[in-house]
Amino acid sequence: MARSTIREILKLTQRPDIISFAGGLPAPELFPVERVKEAADRVLTEHGAEALQYGASEGVRDLRDLIAERMSRGGVNVTRDDILIVSGAQQGIDLIGKVLLEDGDGLAVEDPTYMGMLQAWRPYNLCYYTVPTDHDGLDLDVLRRILRENPKLIYLVPNFQNPQGVTLSAERRRALIELLDEFDGIVVEDNPYGELRYSGEHIPSLYELDAQYSGKTTFDGHVIYLGTFSKILAPGVRVGWIAAPPAIMERLVQAKQASDLHTSTLTQMLVAEVARDGFLDEHVECLRDVYEARRDLMLEAMETYFPKEVRWAKPDGGLFLMAYAPEYVDMTDMFKVALEHKVAYVPGADFFVGGTAAGGHTFRLNFSNARPAMIDEGIKRLGAMLHEVIAFQPTH
Amino acid sequence: MARSTIREILKLTQRPDIISFAGGLPAPELFPVERVKEAADRVLTEHGAEALQYGASEGVRDLRDLIAERMSRGGVNVTRDDILIVSGAQQGIDLIGKVLLEDGDGLAVEDPTYMGMLQAWRPYNLCYYTVPTDHDGLDLDVLRRILRENPKLIYLVPNFQNPQGVTLSAERRRALIELLDEFDGIVVEDNPYGELRYSGEHIPSLYELDAQYSGKTTFDGHVIYLGTFSKILAPGVRVGWIAAPPAIMERLVQAKQASDLHTSTLTQMLVAEVARDGFLDEHVECLRDVYEARRDLMLEAMETYFPKEVRWAKPDGGLFLMAYAPEYVDMTDMFKVALEHKVAYVPGADFFVGGTAAGGHTFRLNFSNARPAMIDEGIKRLGAMLHEVIAFQPTH
Repeated sequence: MARSTIREILKLTQRPDIISFAGGLPAPELFPVERVKEAADRVLTEHGAEALQYGASEGVRDLRDLIAERMSRGGVNVTRDDILIVSGAQQGIDLIGKVLLEDGDGLAVEDPTYMGMLQAWRPYNLCYYTVPTDHDGLDLDVLRRILRENPKLIYLVPNFQNPQGVTLSAERRRALIELLDEFDGIVVEDNPYGELRYSGEHIPSLYELDAQYSGKTTFDGHVIYLGTFSKILAPGVRVGWIAAPPAIMERLVQAKQASDLHTSTLTQMLVAEVARDGFLDEHVECLRDVYEARRDLMLEAMETYFPKEVRWAKPDGGLFLMAYAPEYVDMTDMFKVALEHKVAYVPGADFFVGGTAAGGHTFRLNFSNARPAMIDEGIKRLGAMLHEVIAFQPTH
Repeated sequence: MARSTIREILKLTQRPDIISFAGGLPAPELFPVERVKEAADRVLTEHGAEALQYGASEGVRDLRDLIAERMSRGGVNVTRDDILIVSGAQQGIDLIGKVLLEDGDGLAVEDPTYMGMLQAWRPYNLCYYTVPTDHDGLDLDVLRRILRENPKLIYLVPNFQNPQGVTLSAERRRALIELLDEFDGIVVEDNPYGELRYSGEHIPSLYELDAQYSGKTTFDGHVIYLGTFSKILAPGVRVGWIAAPPAIMERLVQAKQASDLHTSTLTQMLVAEVARDGFLDEHVECLRDVYEARRDLMLEAMETYFPKEVRWAKPDGGLFLMAYAPEYVDMTDMFKVALEHKVAYVPGADFFVGGTAAGGHTFRLNFSNARPAMIDEGIKRLGAMLHEVIAFQPTH
């Protein structure tokens, strides 16, 4: 296991003089600190002993009910028993690996894909099948050929993918569910950003579409769903969840128990208390407004300051967009130059299964964390750096 | 992985009419709820954004400093860099497995040993070398023979072991360190109960003795130490730590990051805030007083109500003692009968590497959780049951 580039970069970019578009940090000024404080007081006053005691590995009942209710809004009947609380979606990935993956298994992924998944599953020496993506998400013709090879799992971030910001279209989601049914495949649907949509129409999750396709209200399906409160409430509480078919759920609970017994009772009860009476829904509305404005500001600034040789696509939601410099520019090498320009991004290479050869010229920008004035200034600095490096290539 | 007996039993024993000596639950009425409430308010008021944001995989600085200071009290210079925060010691066990164990590796353990370790490391199909114990802890002559076979790790709970309550003597600890040096062995020292001593003299940890033996103030040693706030503060926060030599620490941090990024920033800051200004030390004093009284009460009640055929040893600390029925009594079978008598314990079989054949007649009793009146009544019920089953064995 190599220490993740993201975490190391985060340390560097904590210098106050650097404008950082690295990391995947939510905007700290939007954390509902007062609400959390009131909730902590109420939970500890009314249920102090319970909040500080050991709890069930499955998680706190009220929180599982809350998640089941929110996941049922699309028309699928999700119940408490379908939900396992985990310490952030990253732990969900770890547990799924423990339960389903063996050494040398095949895994189908978008390329680029989520770096934290690559890191968590590195010990399994997986055989990666990479699926190319366009603006509607992954190429299903390629995926069909891959499914004939019988990979153990497919891992996808269907909404506003990290790092590309791409969303899998409704049409392709339906076609994907049919493919899963045909090949008896299992997909891990990692959906941290699904509620953070700023433009375009909401698209049902694979989890919902699978349940609808199978025609049951509860189902033994093809989708393991990962959710988290990190992006819609606060990552510091480390509370996420897995929704999975019963046969897999049983094994996930065992793996959770062996891993850390259970997620903090206190933070689970806190999240349930903060969320209640519609607060979380209102809070998500507020996040959407602010992040949409920041996305638009960043896109405008890129239009203004970036050289014409750099390309990017507009994401409909989430926290990230990916930009493509000309192929002769190594954005990993350029990272040090960027720091001299007092600006930071995440080099794209580590998101690609093929590493530098595949994505050395790409870079990921986060638009949720920096305040508006910083976004404009930071993109200006980055633009200046990109103009320099492109001007210095005499053969192009 | 089989779902842990303890967790399943805990569910059954939550029925209010049952007096439970199962589980390893601290006394909930001793949780410092008011102090935690004040600390939550202060942390969120003064550092709200930090407490709710992502943090470093190593853990929160102030908490690592606090732990380093507490671990240095024995004279060894422990620093922040020696400490990794984990989500309870159970996660420490999981991470150590990820970093050091491979399929089929050898592991030397006390027999019986901690069930949660057996569960966490089950996927590695370990070859277990069991070391018998007497009232001074494990038999070092047997361990020396085992070390010649080159097991990957030794796993020990040297203080008030779960489930037996046995403590490894000072003399044997020193001899063990010499053995580790001779064979270049690594021991995992799991020490959840070390501060909960009610009688006898404090004995330095293996971690301290190893550092002193090597003659260095900081060291590249033979001991990986696991600590937790679960038993001295509250398990619901899920905060523990690993202290390890630098070469192993680097890999543990990577494994922690891949597992769940980091432990909740909020609960880490909360623990540091609760502990400060000597509060935690005072609180541990209070726990010692209460738990000592409960231990003594349970021992007296056992003396009064248990048949003479049942044996047990007095533990000098911790939360547990183990009792031995005659070998013809299967305490796993008897568990259902105990529930009819409205009392619960943990059958000992699952703590033994050899299972029922080795420990079917044993049972573990927890004396920290139940209130005094319940302890007397519960042991009385258990005694009645044991008298019945022993009287019904005509051949004995």
